[in-house]
Amino acid sequence: MYDCIIIGTGAAGVSAALTLKALKVNFLLLGDKKLSRKIRSAEKIKNYPGLIGVSGEEMSKVFLTQLADAEIEITQGKANGVYPMGDSFSVMCGQVTYEGRTIILATGVETIKPVKGETEFLGRGVSYCAVCDGFLYKDKTIAVYCEGEEEIKEVLLLSQYASKVYLFCPEKVKVDAPNVERVGAVIKQIKGDMRTRAVVGVQGEWAVDGVFMLKQSFGADTLVYGLKTEDGAIVTDKNQGTNLAGVFAAGDCTGRPFQYAKAVGEGNVCAYSVNAYLKSGKGV
Amino acid sequence: MYDCIIIGTGAAGVSAALTLKALKVNFLLLGDKKLSRKIRSAEKIKNYPGLIGVSGEEMSKVFLTQLADAEIEITQGKANGVYPMGDSFSVMCGQVTYEGRTIILATGVETIKPVKGETEFLGRGVSYCAVCDGFLYKDKTIAVYCEGEEEIKEVLLLSQYASKVYLFCPEKVKVDAPNVERVGAVIKQIKGDMRTRAVVGVQGEWAVDGVFMLKQSFGADTLVYGLKTEDGAIVTDKNQGTNLAGVFAAGDCTGRPFQYAKAVGEGNVCAYSVNAYLKSGKGV
Repeated sequence: MYDCIIIGTGAAGVSAALTLKALKVNFLLLGDKKLSRKIRSAEKIKNYPGLIGVSGEEMSKVFLTQLADAEIEITQGKANGVYPMGDSFSVMCGQVTYEGRTIILATGVETIKPVKGETEFLGRGVSYCAVCDGFLYKDKTIAVYCEGEEEIKEVLLLSQYASKVYLFCPEKVKVDAPNVERVGAVIKQIKGDMRTRAVVGVQGEWAVDGVFMLKQSFGADTLVYGLKTEDGAIVTDKNQGTNLAGVFAAGDCTGRPFQYAKAVGEGNVCAYSVNAYLKSGKGV
Repeated sequence: MYDCIIIGTGAAGVSAALTLKALKVNFLLLGDKKLSRKIRSAEKIKNYPGLIGVSGEEMSKVFLTQLADAEIEITQGKANGVYPMGDSFSVMCGQVTYEGRTIILATGVETIKPVKGETEFLGRGVSYCAVCDGFLYKDKTIAVYCEGEEEIKEVLLLSQYASKVYLFCPEKVKVDAPNVERVGAVIKQIKGDMRTRAVVGVQGEWAVDGVFMLKQSFGADTLVYGLKTEDGAIVTDKNQGTNLAGVFAAGDCTGRPFQYAKAVGEGNVCAYSVNAYLKSGKGV
C-alpha cells in the first residue's frame, strides 16, 4: 500500500514526485519511463523559469536527471481505471493492481475526444483495456480502435479471443492475424440499446458485440468513476482537490493554460495537499 | 499606460513577466532589480523541476539571465499603493506613479504582521510612505518604525518635516538628525480616537500625531484598498483573479504552500488571465 499514487509523468507528475519525496511521503510514480510524450515533443520552451530556451527533449533530460538524483523511480505503466476501495484506491494497470491511500491525477489532456456513444456505452460493450476485458469477447465480433504500432500487441491478444476483429487505425498498421480486418481510420459513433450493437465508420456500419478503444490517453472522468469535470477538465479547488476525497489533480488535465509552469505549480500544491490529507488521518 | 503592471520580482513575478512577454503584452515589472530578497536568500532548493539542487543565489542568476535574454527590464521600486481609476489603476511608487490597465500582485508574504491598530488607523495617521505623506506632518510629532539601514534616508526626510521623531528599529541604526530619538525596537500598538494619538512600545507610550511604518513588505490588503484576504492571504479563483476586476495575484501572497513551483505556476496562469481580460475588452 502506497501513501500516494501519481498517475502520469508529465511536468505535473514530476513536480509532485519531487515534492512528495522532499516531504518523505511513500509514493508510486506511474507512467512512461521516458516521461510523457507531450514533454518530449515540445520544440522550444520559452517561458519556463529556470530553463532558458530549451527543447522538450532537453527539459526531459533535466527532469530525468533530477528524478534519478532524488532516487525516484518511474514504474512503467498506463492506468486503465481507478477504483475507490473505502479508505484507499485500486489503480488498475493492465494485469497489475496498485493500492494507494491517495491519488494524484497528472494524466495530461485527452488528445482524442470521445466518439459519440463512447461514454454512454462504457462498461456496456465499450472497454479501454484489452488485457482486462478481452476474455469477455470469446468467439464474439468486436471493433478495435488503436492509434498506431504501439497497440498492435493488444490487438493480437484480442484476436485470440474474438472470432472477428474490425480494426480502425489512422496508420496503415500490419497485423499478423487472419481474423483481423482493417476497415477504416476512425470510429465515428458507437450504437446500441442496452448494450453495444454496432460501430459507425466513414465507410459504413459494422455489427459488433464490443468495442475496444486503445487510446494513449483517456478522459479523466472515464479513468475515475464519478470524477467531476467541466468541458473535459477536472474540477479542482485551490488545493488541487477534486470532488472525490483523497483524489487530487494537476497539470493539463485540470484545464487551460496548457503550460509547463502551471503544471509544475499544481503538482507541487498537490504534494502538499496529499501530505496534509494523510496527516489529518484521512485515507489511513 | 501599460497593459499590465507586475508588482514584485520573486518567482511569481518573473514567471508572469516571461509569459506576458511571450504573449506580447506591454507590461512593467516593478520590484528589486536583484530580484526579491527571499529568492536570493534560499540556502538550497531541492524540489524545483528544472534546477537541480541550486541555491537561491544560483536560481536568481538563472532567472536574471532569462529576463535579460527575453529583453525584460526590472524597474526598481517599491509600490506604496494601488488605486483604481475607473478602467485602470495607478501604482504609487514613492514620488513616481505608473498607470496600468491590469495589475498582477506578486508581492510575497508579509514577513512582519501589522501591529495592533495599524490597519485601523491607516490613512488616519498611519502611513507607509515618507515621500508621499511626510509633508502632512510639518512641525508635528511622529513615530517611525523602520527595519534597518535601508530606510534611514526616509527617516531623515521625515525629520526635516516633523519637529520630533520617535524612532523604533530592531537594529541600532545611527541617524544624523538632532530631533530623531531611537526609543525602542518595535511598536506594539497604535492608539487613537478619530485619528492616531499615541504609540505603545515595550518601554512606554509616546503621544504622536502620526506613525510611519517603513516596512519592506506590506499586507496586500493595505497595498490595494478593498482587496479580499483571508488569514493574510489574497483570495483568488482558479484563474488567479481577485475580488477586484483587473487585479490578479500569484505566489506567496495568495497563501501556502510558500514554494517556488507554486509561485511560478500561478504567475504563469496570471499572465494568461491578464491576456484574456485585456482581449475581452475589459480594462481598455
